[in-house]
Amino acid sequence: MQRATAKPLYIRMHADDNVAIVANRAGLHPGAEFSCGLRLVEQIPQGHKVALADIREGEAIRRYGEVIGYADAPIAKGSWVRESLVRMPNAPSFDNLPKSNGAAIRLPPLEGYTFEGYRNADGSVGTRNILAISTSVQCVAGTVEFALERIRKELLPKYPNVDGVVAITHAYGCGVAINAPGAAVPIRTLQNLARNPNFGSEVMIVGLGCEKLQPELLLPEGMSADDEIMRMQDEGLTGFGEIVDEIVQMADARLKVLNERRRETCPASALVVGMQCGGSDAFSGVTANPALGFAADLLVRAGATVMFSEVTEVRDAIHLLTPRAANQEVADALVREMAWYDRYLAGGEADRSANTTPGNKEGGLSNIVEKAMGSVIKSGTSPIAGVLAPGERASQKGLIFAATPASDFVCGTLQLASGMTLHVFTTGRGTPYGLAAVPVIKVSTRSELKQRWHDLIDVDAGSIATGDATIEDVGWEIFRLILDVASGRETWAEHWKLTNALALFNPGPVT
Amino acid sequence: MQRATAKPLYIRMHADDNVAIVANRAGLHPGAEFSCGLRLVEQIPQGHKVALADIREGEAIRRYGEVIGYADAPIAKGSWVRESLVRMPNAPSFDNLPKSNGAAIRLPPLEGYTFEGYRNADGSVGTRNILAISTSVQCVAGTVEFALERIRKELLPKYPNVDGVVAITHAYGCGVAINAPGAAVPIRTLQNLARNPNFGSEVMIVGLGCEKLQPELLLPEGMSADDEIMRMQDEGLTGFGEIVDEIVQMADARLKVLNERRRETCPASALVVGMQCGGSDAFSGVTANPALGFAADLLVRAGATVMFSEVTEVRDAIHLLTPRAANQEVADALVREMAWYDRYLAGGEADRSANTTPGNKEGGLSNIVEKAMGSVIKSGTSPIAGVLAPGERASQKGLIFAATPASDFVCGTLQLASGMTLHVFTTGRGTPYGLAAVPVIKVSTRSELKQRWHDLIDVDAGSIATGDATIEDVGWEIFRLILDVASGRETWAEHWKLTNALALFNPGPVT
Ligand SMILES: [Ca+2]
Ligand SMILES: [Ca+2]
Ligand SMILES: [Ca+2]
Ligand SMILES: [Ca+2]
Ligand SMILES: [Ca+2]
Repeated sequence: MQRATAKPLYIRMHADDNVAIVANRAGLHPGAEFSCGLRLVEQIPQGHKVALADIREGEAIRRYGEVIGYADAPIAKGSWVRESLVRMPNAPSFDNLPKSNGAAIRLPPLEGYTFEGYRNADGSVGTRNILAISTSVQCVAGTVEFALERIRKELLPKYPNVDGVVAITHAYGCGVAINAPGAAVPIRTLQNLARNPNFGSEVMIVGLGCEKLQPELLLPEGMSADDEIMRMQDEGLTGFGEIVDEIVQMADARLKVLNERRRETCPASALVVGMQCGGSDAFSGVTANPALGFAADLLVRAGATVMFSEVTEVRDAIHLLTPRAANQEVADALVREMAWYDRYLAGGEADRSANTTPGNKEGGLSNIVEKAMGSVIKSGTSPIAGVLAPGERASQKGLIFAATPASDFVCGTLQLASGMTLHVFTTGRGTPYGLAAVPVIKVSTRSELKQRWHDLIDVDAGSIATGDATIEDVGWEIFRLILDVASGRETWAEHWKLTNALALFNPGPVT
Repeated sequence: MQRATAKPLYIRMHADDNVAIVANRAGLHPGAEFSCGLRLVEQIPQGHKVALADIREGEAIRRYGEVIGYADAPIAKGSWVRESLVRMPNAPSFDNLPKSNGAAIRLPPLEGYTFEGYRNADGSVGTRNILAISTSVQCVAGTVEFALERIRKELLPKYPNVDGVVAITHAYGCGVAINAPGAAVPIRTLQNLARNPNFGSEVMIVGLGCEKLQPELLLPEGMSADDEIMRMQDEGLTGFGEIVDEIVQMADARLKVLNERRRETCPASALVVGMQCGGSDAFSGVTANPALGFAADLLVRAGATVMFSEVTEVRDAIHLLTPRAANQEVADALVREMAWYDRYLAGGEADRSANTTPGNKEGGLSNIVEKAMGSVIKSGTSPIAGVLAPGERASQKGLIFAATPASDFVCGTLQLASGMTLHVFTTGRGTPYGLAAVPVIKVSTRSELKQRWHDLIDVDAGSIATGDATIEDVGWEIFRLILDVASGRETWAEHWKLTNALALFNPGPVT
């Protein structure tokens, strides 16, 4: 643990940078002198930027070797580069982006890593053995929750090899413009959620009967509506008791099947890992996200599928991503998704700058450009093998850009639909993130957070800032923990059974 | 119960109508003859329309005395007026609407009706005694649910006069464009939800710390942030245990206060009733909604506040509503809300026709115009005293148009924010609607539904269709049940503790 009296320390990300962030936990006082001789002319809080040189009015401010803004006034060497001094640049234009060059990126394969997973008939592998109850409409959610209590109390104790039962409830399905162009997103999300590898191909769908999103739409191809769907309005069901009984009986039949499953040794290539950051600070791009990026490279080298997301947080780094696209089609798909999101935000009279939060700014992030540079680092250095529109199912190995909003549970829900079987979540300010369908590994950007939230944070990347560990050290730690957790080791969120509700992305209107 | 062999029966709503709906439960066969001499030329299902006269191609089809469409082909007397034969009219223009004449509508006052309610310091009266835990952001929802289990198990048994504890969780608060024009709606909804009269003015807000929607924004005026707000990221809270303890302790202090409250006799004028329909069929506008409209008139005559909502279901009846506006300002406000919604839908490339569901159509409703005519009947005949934008708090007595989407839980959530202390929900196809914050009285449009869902439906309005009861009979039954339930009598949803999650209306984008 770094003390307030420790040696003044800043972190510079790139040789071209004219700013760096203060690493010391309590910040630094005027007069504090760094080992390079730089002396502070004013107080600077932890995570906030110090000018490494005099910066003229209008001059570019560089971090990560990228322009994160322009000085709105002259900034003297050693002063605090406050948010108010940083004028945000325009988003990079989609014209004249660097061409795809990803085919040239070659990372050495990583062999011999395995985990203990649940193999599915379709070739996918789950990290948990869970029964999912899909629902076609919000109207049935209360009844399904009622049945779920009975299932947990009466059935689950009989099936010790099953990890849990989750209801995929949501606010969609009726009272929405189901033929509007935006409706494709929530519908395919619900379709693909039911097929998540952690649900062992056992499908059951509870519908009402009169809803717009008819339950058949959620049925995977080749499955029979008669077997997998129940409708509460069915004339054969008399009273609430019979409705609940029907749900419980459908669950029982599936739990029996799931209970017969056992973990088997599977290659690491069978993993589908979703990555996200939330409650970010200036350390996110320095500690946790670079370490996660290193782990992502290890996963890609081991043949796994790894997703990064959060469109508004990669939009400003598009010029760094198109050259990494495996081919020009992938580069074009990156642009397609970001252009779609630009239009979506403009339709609501907003833009990407709506992303940053008070916590981001208090944590030292001046604007979305600086946040994006720190966010996109978690994609590592691999070629980008593919792009998914929101809620599409991943069918490729390698690093995938799964286009999603940055909103934490919306992103998590869409990555679940894309087939994620394990979530890694980095956080600077701290968020008690948990999902019922997959284990969530939480990585802190600062050691202070890990110390305070010792029983919520799984990995501390803060030691990178103090020089006590390298990005590689923590990257390997995350990679090994991913394999352990995929094999059944409990995360802190699982220990507490701490889960957040799914949040569907519906770009279409409510009626 | 009406038998399939019963006398052929149709229901005509207005002397000008050239169609009527078949009332017989099993529908009617070709050759069936009504008492007026009309003979069916083909099979017609229950709730579907029969032509009472020959209708020429292009001629207006009238129900409720209003044009619900134009014949797409000649329709012979006695045939089935199928959805495919009915061309939908354009929505009424906002130009040249009838002027406000509501001041001229005089309903005789109704005196002496009371209920046993919980009086609040601000003059409002609750129908239940509930602790609400407000949340500023989705991130804390899982932790609040965790604390809620402890509160229900450890604390509630000590406080027998408290009816329950609800967490106002939601998918808003961060990851949203909080400065976009649409953001005002979810923010004021959350602000006003915490002030619902059923929550006894005891406020507590659980926040995270770094979220966009800072918890202070949810604090009612005059309350202290230090007392009513906790932030999970507070540096004084070490570990998940202390975070949960803090929530439990805040709840305990408030439960002590709520437990001292007792019901008192209050005039019916202190009621705030929200009305809605869902899963509608052709009987909604014939049985349940007219009976609820009669009850609404009784409530208004007794001085209560009564809200009707569901913009897309009143849009086509705007020309029937502006003349009922208490003054021209109210008439203009009606138009303002409907014009806003027209633009909102157009922004998502949809229009009001996106409202109707497969269940509506199977139930006999050809289009949104016919649905709207049946929906708006529940507003009764009173003058419209005021108009609320989505989520605004009602401050008036009388009949209020609270503009909301028709989506069942979005509408219910917005009416809760407007101050509703009791919800009446009419349903044709059937929906197991329940809310944690207020009792919900469910009224069926057909007796068959009440017979099948005997332990979910509170009132059967189906006897109106068979002639076994009048609209006035069922209207009085609903009115008396409202007073009983407001005084503490359990609804079926309360009996089962059947509750659906709140659903915030966020017209702004996700980031
Ligand atoms: Ca992020
Ligand atoms: Ca995020
Ligand atoms: Ca207080
Ligand atoms: Ca309705
Ligand atoms: Ca409705």
